[in-house]
Amino acid sequence: MKPLLLTMGDAAGIGPEIIVKAFEVGQAQDAVVLGDVAVMRRAAALLGGRVAVERVDTPGAPVAPGVLPVLPPQALPGDLADVPFGHVDARAGAAAAACITDAVRLVRAGEGRAIVTAPIHKEALSAAGVPFPGHTEMLQALSVDAGDPPPVRMMLANDELRTVLVTIHMSLRRALDAVTFDGVLETLRIAHRSLRAMGIDRPRVAVAGLNPHAGEGGLFGDEEVTTIAPAIAAARAEGIDASGPFAPDTVFMRARNAPGHPGEFDVVVSMIHDHGLIPVKYLGVEQGVNVTLGLPFVRTSPDHGTAFDIAGTGRADAASLVAALKMARVLTPA
Amino acid sequence: MKPLLLTMGDAAGIGPEIIVKAFEVGQAQDAVVLGDVAVMRRAAALLGGRVAVERVDTPGAPVAPGVLPVLPPQALPGDLADVPFGHVDARAGAAAAACITDAVRLVRAGEGRAIVTAPIHKEALSAAGVPFPGHTEMLQALSVDAGDPPPVRMMLANDELRTVLVTIHMSLRRALDAVTFDGVLETLRIAHRSLRAMGIDRPRVAVAGLNPHAGEGGLFGDEEVTTIAPAIAAARAEGIDASGPFAPDTVFMRARNAPGHPGEFDVVVSMIHDHGLIPVKYLGVEQGVNVTLGLPFVRTSPDHGTAFDIAGTGRADAASLVAALKMARVLTPA
Repeated sequence: MKPLLLTMGDAAGIGPEIIVKAFEVGQAQDAVVLGDVAVMRRAAALLGGRVAVERVDTPGAPVAPGVLPVLPPQALPGDLADVPFGHVDARAGAAAAACITDAVRLVRAGEGRAIVTAPIHKEALSAAGVPFPGHTEMLQALSVDAGDPPPVRMMLANDELRTVLVTIHMSLRRALDAVTFDGVLETLRIAHRSLRAMGIDRPRVAVAGLNPHAGEGGLFGDEEVTTIAPAIAAARAEGIDASGPFAPDTVFMRARNAPGHPGEFDVVVSMIHDHGLIPVKYLGVEQGVNVTLGLPFVRTSPDHGTAFDIAGTGRADAASLVAALKMARVLTPA
Repeated sequence: MKPLLLTMGDAAGIGPEIIVKAFEVGQAQDAVVLGDVAVMRRAAALLGGRVAVERVDTPGAPVAPGVLPVLPPQALPGDLADVPFGHVDARAGAAAAACITDAVRLVRAGEGRAIVTAPIHKEALSAAGVPFPGHTEMLQALSVDAGDPPPVRMMLANDELRTVLVTIHMSLRRALDAVTFDGVLETLRIAHRSLRAMGIDRPRVAVAGLNPHAGEGGLFGDEEVTTIAPAIAAARAEGIDASGPFAPDTVFMRARNAPGHPGEFDVVVSMIHDHGLIPVKYLGVEQGVNVTLGLPFVRTSPDHGTAFDIAGTGRADAASLVAALKMARVLTPA
């Protein structure tokens, strides 16, 4: 089995230390870290020095048991060992981007099973002159050699609930205009395809409305009637088991799959960021995993940021990274 | 102690049967039903006839143990016993409105402790020519003899979470324009005052933003900067412990008060309907209670509708009504 490609993230954030923690609890033994050896050694040291970090030169290079392999990216900037914790640093931004670039190159070359990314910092990327605001846009651009990047969607998932978002990082006002027939239909296709790839033969895709009570028959807004319902009908005509639009305030509860409460749906498509993220995060952010759907490879990440406020203290919780590693395995069955 | 005034709701819906169920499990013994005797007897019969229903002529009239007292409103229309279940019926709408009217009259006259309302049906009200779309507007209008009705806000609450809404039943597009400095500030005042009345000396009021990541510093919308933060500052200047605006996707998780997870806040103010209702309902709609804040009396209701699809089958769950009765007691300490 090829290794999971685990990018180090921003060296000033909690990425390196949660990677060491995940390894220490036996949850990253099938991964190779794309990162800087000195940064990863610093993280191992601050956690008590129980994990040995060694440089490797190829993703699958063997290492001794208990050794965390680190593959430095080709474009790594100079020494990073003195990047201060908790501050925006252009070197950390450049290094984070270099790790992502090499991870995509390797996974596209068939040298990795999937990509799992530790958190990066938007301002550090910007300080380094990286022309992408975040992971998603960078992964999209790197996933093609020429032409338009593939349409992607963010899925947030935990053990109980999965949601795929039609719109994400924009104002609510802009999101209202970004909920289009094409955007909804493409989301339904991507959600359907991706859940099939996860081994669900006929995914039950619920669609949340945009307005309160899903518009109450046009009384509280008409996007459900003009845009969302037609997209659902088009998806159904393609053989997708899509249903809705349902009232946003109850569809997530209905989809929730917990002991004694079987979910009615396999995934909920959300029109706006917070309809979907509020319920996924409600029971504890550390359980959430972010999956980018639509790329020609699997990419997962923890559902939190660089946590500059606690970086370097060793207090960061590796649970979401562990969940992201598990999800990457689920999405790439052997 | 004066009785809780429990309105029957729409006779074609589940209201009468959940009232009988709540009484049968010993959870409505301190209430008098504002309703029609024949309708309540029909509900008792379909549930097995174990509860005796008797007419009373004043709210506090004594009845034998095990007897559910029903006080018919003054303006009750003719015979309601043949109102069919699950259909819009003008007689049911008129009766529901008459029950509410009398409940408000009685509570304002000091003859009841609080009002708890069973679900009504908007179209039945409309068919009866009632000039209000729902409970809230009707209660507001009836709570004053002249002049403007008081500003009110909807609070949704369960054992773990309370949320008060700035905007409710309108399209998301209209809600964006309805999030004003005055509207947010008034919501903060009402939330603060109401939680103090519930016995929380210094309520910790969290404010959720409107946009993803609460606007990420203006990058994803500026309502947090232009409107919400100034309203929070004004509330703080009045001595209200308001904080935020916080990212909507994590503030509800932070406020959630569960065993092993003490909530950071006593209430979350939500700008839009579904930010607040999604997390309150996520763990099971039957636990939710709707409280109208800002009226000169306490009013609670279950967090569901008339459920025409199952009305008359005896399958309706009384849990949310029981929770509403409990909440009414909490809000009116002896």
